[in-house]
Amino acid sequence: MRIGIIGCNAAGISAASAARKNDRKAEIFLVESEEVAAYSRCGLPHAISGEVTDFANLIVFPRSYYKLMRLDLRLRTTAKSIDLKEKRLVVEYEGKEECLQFDRLVLATGSNLFSPPARGMELAYHLRTIADGKGICAAAEASSSAVIVGGGLIGLEMAVALRQKGLKISLVEMLPQIAPNMLDSDMAQILQGRLEQRDIEILTGSTIQYVQREAKSSNIVLSTGSMKADLVIAATGIRPNTELARSAGLRIGESGGIWVNPRLQTSVEDIYAAGECVELLNFITGRPVLSQFGTSAVRSGRVAGTNAAGGYATMPRVLNSAVSKLFETQVGVTGLTESQAEKQGLTTISGIMGGKTKAPYYPGSKNIFAKLTFNRENMKLVGAQIIGEEEVTQRINMLSMAIKGGMTVWDLELAETCYTPPLAEPWEVSLHEASQSVLAKMKNRKN
Amino acid sequence: MRIGIIGCNAAGISAASAARKNDRKAEIFLVESEEVAAYSRCGLPHAISGEVTDFANLIVFPRSYYKLMRLDLRLRTTAKSIDLKEKRLVVEYEGKEECLQFDRLVLATGSNLFSPPARGMELAYHLRTIADGKGICAAAEASSSAVIVGGGLIGLEMAVALRQKGLKISLVEMLPQIAPNMLDSDMAQILQGRLEQRDIEILTGSTIQYVQREAKSSNIVLSTGSMKADLVIAATGIRPNTELARSAGLRIGESGGIWVNPRLQTSVEDIYAAGECVELLNFITGRPVLSQFGTSAVRSGRVAGTNAAGGYATMPRVLNSAVSKLFETQVGVTGLTESQAEKQGLTTISGIMGGKTKAPYYPGSKNIFAKLTFNRENMKLVGAQIIGEEEVTQRINMLSMAIKGGMTVWDLELAETCYTPPLAEPWEVSLHEASQSVLAKMKNRKN
Repeated sequence: MRIGIIGCNAAGISAASAARKNDRKAEIFLVESEEVAAYSRCGLPHAISGEVTDFANLIVFPRSYYKLMRLDLRLRTTAKSIDLKEKRLVVEYEGKEECLQFDRLVLATGSNLFSPPARGMELAYHLRTIADGKGICAAAEASSSAVIVGGGLIGLEMAVALRQKGLKISLVEMLPQIAPNMLDSDMAQILQGRLEQRDIEILTGSTIQYVQREAKSSNIVLSTGSMKADLVIAATGIRPNTELARSAGLRIGESGGIWVNPRLQTSVEDIYAAGECVELLNFITGRPVLSQFGTSAVRSGRVAGTNAAGGYATMPRVLNSAVSKLFETQVGVTGLTESQAEKQGLTTISGIMGGKTKAPYYPGSKNIFAKLTFNRENMKLVGAQIIGEEEVTQRINMLSMAIKGGMTVWDLELAETCYTPPLAEPWEVSLHEASQSVLAKMKNRKN
Repeated sequence: MRIGIIGCNAAGISAASAARKNDRKAEIFLVESEEVAAYSRCGLPHAISGEVTDFANLIVFPRSYYKLMRLDLRLRTTAKSIDLKEKRLVVEYEGKEECLQFDRLVLATGSNLFSPPARGMELAYHLRTIADGKGICAAAEASSSAVIVGGGLIGLEMAVALRQKGLKISLVEMLPQIAPNMLDSDMAQILQGRLEQRDIEILTGSTIQYVQREAKSSNIVLSTGSMKADLVIAATGIRPNTELARSAGLRIGESGGIWVNPRLQTSVEDIYAAGECVELLNFITGRPVLSQFGTSAVRSGRVAGTNAAGGYATMPRVLNSAVSKLFETQVGVTGLTESQAEKQGLTTISGIMGGKTKAPYYPGSKNIFAKLTFNRENMKLVGAQIIGEEEVTQRINMLSMAIKGGMTVWDLELAETCYTPPLAEPWEVSLHEASQSVLAKMKNRKN
């Protein structure tokens, strides 16, 4: 058995490790176009900020791991085409083409950066690879100000990282709110206020027209005015990299990702796909979605690698849970936001609540805001958004379990949680209080 | 409508608040034998240690709250007997008896301290009330060493609190492990090691024979030897206070708590019960249990108060989730331990796993140990124990949701969690890694 894996980052290395676990004898090769493999992309902003002291620290799997696991890693090698009939992968290494035979193939081709079509933006920095990160770091050293174009998670993390390096920061978002894929506008407003307090200028509802490079700095012309900055960074999203799959004739899903079944088999037997390039199903709606997060990359990689090596695994439907740390603020989400749910045709009812993370008399209690969204038809939880200063991650995980458990507002209203004054409140803001606010709303509407 | 509530701590005040919410006009009176009402018993160790600077801070509801909610609070008033036929409660205040008429009654009579029958132990300090806490504080000022008898949660918290005040501490536990109601022996061993590292001497498998008071200190004679200490504290547990219920002829459950139906109605209509005195049902086994935690007190209080005032609420079955902070160590539990589950006749399989709380390259990653126990018949999660240094509370809550959602090891193996390097790992030790260790164990057994 010869298993080929295209791409060696979160999904690819997870697929390789799972394949090895399921087949001790298989030949496994990995093709990676970058010079470095299996590093944490999610860690890049933290290496730029300096919290992580060296980009090399982001490399999760040392070379010894590939040796131990007998994985043939081919760096600086680009997959060019797949010959499905002959089961051959054509790759390019140092300008020369080579054919690699495979029995099973896993596509973990990741994403391509998306750049807005504004003139001059092609010169902007973007963040995808370690090389990108190092480039931004070097540019930041010579800069005193930066404009970040794009107010999604990466844009926000870049804004914080560069602010921590002392740069003056402006963030430009086309839509009327930041974090539009993650938060409803009411929660985004809270987050925006916190970032502004930390001296990040935020311009929402503003489109980039063009960027003009001048002597040292750039002139950025927006729909709402113009500004100057030394450094321009595009954080305008990613698109699944499906070129190889398309040219091989694999089916592409309606979300734009590679179509797969629950075992992550593509439309062609023996070809699997995992990571950002793949289309998964949303847990709540059952509809196709992209899930371009590290957490889905490692899970789908494991599932694809297990199946490619003859094991059996299925990929769970996704909630697209995410969390980020922006200065002292932690922001997390799971499931659908209210606006996403309504767009999907659900009728919803939401509760938003602010409070403290622990007993008020205990020193060091932190602030927390939570929004829970329920399906009005059956009152099941469909989404949660939290902004707070501690334990947001595991609160989101608690709520994602509640969604997966099919829990209703009545289940959550009295749900058991653990309590001790130094660590929690007996009634948890993000669970009971937000649920109780929904029940109060329902009661008021009835009266 | 006249609603009487006996006891005004976590359960009683929750019942009163819920009753008021459901009936704006009801007359509501609360009878409390102590001088202070509605303070946090769980906070007492933290006021003794000095983390909470004043015992008065523990009072959660100020006097203005009773006024606002029109609650007739009667302090230093002891309930003596219930006349079910005439619906009268006989109380004693300043040596005089009085009859209070009621339509509905909520018993929130709490617990009594249990003292081991060893000679001299009647002179030991114990911790139940603010007065007890102040007494221990005063005694600790004049002491340089203490023996804590009892290695349950309160004993452990007292040991830590007094160690933080600088006393030399020995803790004596009759059973072969500390935290016997909360942890399996393997996890208790990890906790014990951490406490010993912080200079708490722990003697397990040691029974107290007698205590002899000497000039300044006491001589404590154990089954395993003897020791001297200035201060002796009994933390040997509590028993539901059911005297009033018994003498009124209410049914007592097999756990020793007052029998109630899911609406927390006792065997007599119009009499409800809540808090530590009540018998609840275990979520997993469906069998009667006590649930003497603040979290159950406030929930059962709310349910009983709602029903007493003509509303409708049912008390969920309990997992007896608990968490404690002992120095930097957080210890939490939900559901059944392996040994509890086996005692209940379940066949189980458990996984224990140690690791880190966040990406290894991110500074400040903390240690965490987790044990998950599954029902071998259906592979559903039945219990979790965690010892770690951050976010243990919400991890326990996540796992308690997983239990309530009926999730199996296969659900948990790949369960979606949110991830960002400064806050989490893509695979969570207490969820995925512990589950995967169980699956590996199953595979090895098969082979």
